[in-house]
Amino acid sequence: MAGIGRMNIGQGFDAHRFAPDGSGRELWVAGLKWDGQGEGIEGDSDGDVAAHALIDALLSAARLGDIGTLFGVGSDSAGAGQHGLPMLEHTVAHLRAHGVEPSSASVVVIGNRPKIGKRRAEAEAALSRAVGCPVSVTATTTDRMGFTGSGEGIAAIANALVGFRPR
Amino acid sequence: MAGIGRMNIGQGFDAHRFAPDGSGRELWVAGLKWDGQGEGIEGDSDGDVAAHALIDALLSAARLGDIGTLFGVGSDSAGAGQHGLPMLEHTVAHLRAHGVEPSSASVVVIGNRPKIGKRRAEAEAALSRAVGCPVSVTATTTDRMGFTGSGEGIAAIANALVGFRPR
Amino acid sequence: MAGIGRMNIGQGFDAHRFAPDGSGRELWVAGLKWDGQGEGIEGDSDGDVAAHALIDALLSAARLGDIGTLFGVGSDSAGAGQHGLPMLEHTVAHLRAHGVEPSSASVVVIGNRPKIGKRRAEAEAALSRAVGCPVSVTATTTDRMGFTGSGEGIAAIANALVGFRPR
Ligand SMILES: [Zn+2]
Ligand SMILES: [Zn+2]
Ligand SMILES: [Zn+2]
Repeated sequence: MAGIGRMNIGQGFDAHRFAPDGSGRELWVAGLKWDGQGEGIEGDSDGDVAAHALIDALLSAARLGDIGTLFGVGSDSAGAGQHGLPMLEHTVAHLRAHGVEPSSASVVVIGNRPKIGKRRAEAEAALSRAVGCPVSVTATTTDRMGFTGSGEGIAAIANALVGFRPR
Repeated sequence: MAGIGRMNIGQGFDAHRFAPDGSGRELWVAGLKWDGQGEGIEGDSDGDVAAHALIDALLSAARLGDIGTLFGVGSDSAGAGQHGLPMLEHTVAHLRAHGVEPSSASVVVIGNRPKIGKRRAEAEAALSRAVGCPVSVTATTTDRMGFTGSGEGIAAIANALVGFRPR
Repeated sequence: MAGIGRMNIGQGFDAHRFAPDGSGRELWVAGLKWDGQGEGIEGDSDGDVAAHALIDALLSAARLGDIGTLFGVGSDSAGAGQHGLPMLEHTVAHLRAHGVEPSSASVVVIGNRPKIGKRRAEAEAALSRAVGCPVSVTATTTDRMGFTGSGEGIAAIANALVGFRPR
């Protein structure tokens, strides 16, 4: 933390719809590909709600806009077709170019699938490497209630702390 | 940060229903009035979920209750008819009277409208001025899922860091 | 804060279903038993969403997994039949055994009942004692929208800051 002055906090949230059965879409969440856990997530990118919520938490902690500012929106945007980890890496490069250093971050994945637990360490390692600071991943369901409980979609809530390099 | 000792964290959440079509109610979110973006939000105050979630995040970081404690509940409450920015200013004056100084805060607005993106800088400037520290605003939808996706209502999640003046 | 080095942030979320009418199940939320406020919450433990969201926020801030890692899942898990406060105490003992000290935490309870306001000070005192740092509790409804507004269930969002003892 040497050379880092004040710390700012950021909040992020994201939600996406699962692709219909038979779409053959790959399922990517928390920076990992999940095989045998059903259809993927709709969206212009891979729909990785955990990565996207973390990106918004980091950008808002840095006061640098949000994922739409940085990657655009729609099928011809810079984020289109991209996976969560490279998007996170690009976000962190953007922060650093503005003198901001991620300090720690955390994300909760809310949905019926994938079952994060068995690969939590792998997901945390991948996200922490991409962000360059400790990133934690937890997961929970909503007990068959709401759109995350019916299996219609998946959501994520993230927070982050960043430091500002003295100029 | 000179003169500020320990930092505390706070979490806030709020959700309100949009007013029915034809209500003619003004739409206020994140401290701004949004024209041409549909009906306003129901509630005793202007229903500004972003301001209210930030107020709860700040009050809980300060361990000073919540928005109901400070403004009361119902149509004869101190918050009735008030807009978000004066409510935030009153909240911060209350914190300072208790030796608490907001350090940074962040809020995610979840809903189909208003489209925050184009006026994000304006919203962040207004909220940051009211709170007296950097406040970030991001926005997202829930992809037509749930009450925020159907257009029935709007929600906000906020977090905040505050410092305590040594006595 | 003497002797505490870097601070990490954590996020937590939990949601559970209310037990059906006539279940006779006790209602426990935010570490307290609520009488005369309707049926309790389903789950292997007492279903205290506020305690569970705080546990996940603390564990993720500490990078020590989540509530499932620590207590298991299902009716024969270590958490089965346990109330929120002893689960929080066990969580904090686990953190301290790993050199982590809770610094502050906050939780929002989202649902129609119980009415937290009148016993907020009591809930905050109980949770703060269990966690060993300031814990704030706020509460809000979702204005009859979604599963928390219909009375089907209850949810909680928490965040936490922890410090790491230098080794
Ligand atoms: Zn997304
Ligand atoms: Zn409100
Ligand atoms: Zn639980």
